[in-house]
Amino acid sequence: MTEPVRPREVAAIDIGSNSFHMVVARIVGQSLQIISRHKQRVHLASGLDKHHNLDQAAIKRGLECLAMFAERLQGFEPENVRIAATYTLRQANNAHIFLKRAESILPYSIEIIPGTEEARLIYLGVAHTQPDNGQKLIIDIGGGSTELVIGEDFTPQLAYSKNMGCVSYTERFFVKGKINGKNMAAAQLAAQQKLESIASKYIREGWQTAIGSSGTIKAIREVLIGQGHSDGVITAERLQQLCETILKAKHSEDLDFVGLNDDRKPVFAAGVAILSAVFKSLGINEMVFSDGALREGLLYEMEERFRHSDIRVRTATAMAKQYNVDIAQANRVKETAEQLYSQIEPQPGLTKTELATLLSWGALLHEVGLSISYPGFHRHSAYLLRHSTMPGFNLEQQTVLATLVRFQRKSLKLEEMPELSIYKRKHLYPLIRTLRLAVALNGQRSDDPLPAIAVDAEKEKWQLTLPEGWEESNRLLAADLRQEQAYWRKAGWELELTPDNG
Amino acid sequence: MTEPVRPREVAAIDIGSNSFHMVVARIVGQSLQIISRHKQRVHLASGLDKHHNLDQAAIKRGLECLAMFAERLQGFEPENVRIAATYTLRQANNAHIFLKRAESILPYSIEIIPGTEEARLIYLGVAHTQPDNGQKLIIDIGGGSTELVIGEDFTPQLAYSKNMGCVSYTERFFVKGKINGKNMAAAQLAAQQKLESIASKYIREGWQTAIGSSGTIKAIREVLIGQGHSDGVITAERLQQLCETILKAKHSEDLDFVGLNDDRKPVFAAGVAILSAVFKSLGINEMVFSDGALREGLLYEMEERFRHSDIRVRTATAMAKQYNVDIAQANRVKETAEQLYSQIEPQPGLTKTELATLLSWGALLHEVGLSISYPGFHRHSAYLLRHSTMPGFNLEQQTVLATLVRFQRKSLKLEEMPELSIYKRKHLYPLIRTLRLAVALNGQRSDDPLPAIAVDAEKEKWQLTLPEGWEESNRLLAADLRQEQAYWRKAGWELELTPDNG
Repeated sequence: MTEPVRPREVAAIDIGSNSFHMVVARIVGQSLQIISRHKQRVHLASGLDKHHNLDQAAIKRGLECLAMFAERLQGFEPENVRIAATYTLRQANNAHIFLKRAESILPYSIEIIPGTEEARLIYLGVAHTQPDNGQKLIIDIGGGSTELVIGEDFTPQLAYSKNMGCVSYTERFFVKGKINGKNMAAAQLAAQQKLESIASKYIREGWQTAIGSSGTIKAIREVLIGQGHSDGVITAERLQQLCETILKAKHSEDLDFVGLNDDRKPVFAAGVAILSAVFKSLGINEMVFSDGALREGLLYEMEERFRHSDIRVRTATAMAKQYNVDIAQANRVKETAEQLYSQIEPQPGLTKTELATLLSWGALLHEVGLSISYPGFHRHSAYLLRHSTMPGFNLEQQTVLATLVRFQRKSLKLEEMPELSIYKRKHLYPLIRTLRLAVALNGQRSDDPLPAIAVDAEKEKWQLTLPEGWEESNRLLAADLRQEQAYWRKAGWELELTPDNG
Repeated sequence: MTEPVRPREVAAIDIGSNSFHMVVARIVGQSLQIISRHKQRVHLASGLDKHHNLDQAAIKRGLECLAMFAERLQGFEPENVRIAATYTLRQANNAHIFLKRAESILPYSIEIIPGTEEARLIYLGVAHTQPDNGQKLIIDIGGGSTELVIGEDFTPQLAYSKNMGCVSYTERFFVKGKINGKNMAAAQLAAQQKLESIASKYIREGWQTAIGSSGTIKAIREVLIGQGHSDGVITAERLQQLCETILKAKHSEDLDFVGLNDDRKPVFAAGVAILSAVFKSLGINEMVFSDGALREGLLYEMEERFRHSDIRVRTATAMAKQYNVDIAQANRVKETAEQLYSQIEPQPGLTKTELATLLSWGALLHEVGLSISYPGFHRHSAYLLRHSTMPGFNLEQQTVLATLVRFQRKSLKLEEMPELSIYKRKHLYPLIRTLRLAVALNGQRSDDPLPAIAVDAEKEKWQLTLPEGWEESNRLLAADLRQEQAYWRKAGWELELTPDNG
């Protein structure tokens, strides 16, 4: 008897500002079957001081939760786990300390994702768990940030993330749990100010269904159901009444609603204030709730990356177009880079495919900065790659791409290398060396194919084997390679150029 | 008897890396009549040390020359004088010291212009002094940089500036005036490397006539004429022969050509090396010489700014389009800014028109950074305005625009203000305050017209008079203005909001 093939299991963890969530699913045929969900309130955001440092107690709470999750993930391959961190780790100056300590607990990469990326993934999570009903507005109020997305089918059209959440607004407007009309009004007004610049865009775009996701909106829905609104629909009027009822309490501990957990009480008033502001600013009449959220978005994307194409391909291609990249040249550099990199032994810790993929995107986008201006364009390229909204990329991948293109040419000021968590210098240096060689070898932007070039890489010492006699008939290129040698030497690297005598 | 109307006189000074030039012209009807030219070899670039500091001796030489020019300019109105500095002051870290001391000698602004701007102005200068003959390639080898432009009529299509010039290459490759085959080959190869990345673009674009301008190419032409080539055409073959003849000398002092001034001797070999590299890289067969140069470009542009439209309008409009600026919103902010600024007393030192014009462009372009991403978009806007190629703007104007948009919103970290020469903080602060108010007042991106708002500015203290009762019916906007008040207070400024009781 043969054993039946065990279906692949995937897991996603959402390191949120209020709670951490883990969801595990089984891929059965074409669909995801969720097999377990875990949630723990960590209220990470309340450990963020005004200088944006995360305190030790919060770090400890977070790590304890991750250790618990880790037990469930034993035996999972890295490609089947995706972990995303949002607002609090985006904001924390000492996020790297948290990530470093988490590494020893969980053998998986934690990605800090940009706000718009969070919004996109939430949209994906909701869109996959919702029967389709035309244009959707999706609102997610988290502990530190609120995401607002409009889209149709699986494609978000407008996606913003605003730094306001139920934990951060509690700290700011409901100090020590005190509830009164002034606090509530101030919180609502502040949230409306946050939304002011984008509201008219959303209203103009329009939607057929407004959908809420995640804990804050779920809690509001459950309280409304507890009050007898059994359809669970959040309407502007019900929300207004809920505000008034909340104001009868003097302290968050006094909030005594059917359906409201003790855990949620401290941040409930702030959540209601933010949702009220969203309703007012966007003119929402009613909102339904969806179970889909960031973690489902992560799961679905993981599954789609295997099944279909990677959204990052679309992003990189769109960006090359937006900045009028000379595609012929980008492809020449990309092909040379791929050809060289395929000859190099990978550094342990990350898959070679992932590194090679980043190298290819770096090659495709290395000249985006030319659209700004020629002098110092490698720095402009780096600026654009670091700061642009790039669907599918996390902050660290954007930093890796920015670093690659920053160091594509000119002197190697390695002291300007940024601090990274997942990617180490040992991974980046071979990518940088490869891209530089590919750029130098294609310096003449010529359609004449390059000869086959062998590369032999041993740590800091690389050896390029050039066809015999080739150097003599390509004097300019040879001079460029010698210049490149000098740049390497200054950085403590070695580039040896040898004619092929075989 | 009435005196005849005296024609307007305009003057342009080119603070070059090898020589300073001044040209004075009279505007007669629709044309410029050049009435005097002055030239002095200052060899400013040779005072630039390897840390990019300009030494005292070079500063002194430069200032003495400017003092001499100043005598000729007595009585000229500022709007009739334009002074542009190129490579050496672009490179010098201590350029501000030179500019500060120049200010006390010459009561006119000195603009440091970017390389591509230099290229554009050279093209303009040549195009105006040349009978039109289709697509032109114009090459200008200066003391520190070489400009290469292709264009038709008065419109440049490709314009680059490369950091290689006859003074800097003399210092680098012909140390102490020593001439030999190795030096000459190294200089040529280095120049070809500089041109490598752009050569194929120029060859693809093509040209009907190749034209050289300025001292280096003029000197080569005169030596060729002295050798009997009376048509004065520089051909690839003649240039090759000239190289060989030069190599018979061992030292620049030994160069003994009919037509070569003693002044030119020290930098002649380097100039020939660069021009030879340009010929080889671009595949030029022959080149004629034109008298037009940067200074003529400055003159023609000055005249055109009065007669026709300002090229900067075209630049700003093109940029707004390239980065998909929401033009309706940009115009709202622009109109409010103009309406507010018109009520403010100008600060002495610069014309109010010039300041108001920069404010309008700042308003038009304040949201260009949104195309990169929303978070911190004011910083992205600033990055784009500081680093983009912007025809018609000098470096300081780009910095002013970048500073304006940088401070359009959020907290006023005035310690991040850049150092400026022509524009002082006293000029910038009112512009920043005005733009901020205009942005805040239009925060809702609404088409409803704003009421008339009176502003009374007295140094750091500004008073806005709002229509009575308006604040009550615009609570969100009122909250934004109070937030703005708080930002001003932290910066040591004062914003008073008073209802109109008139």
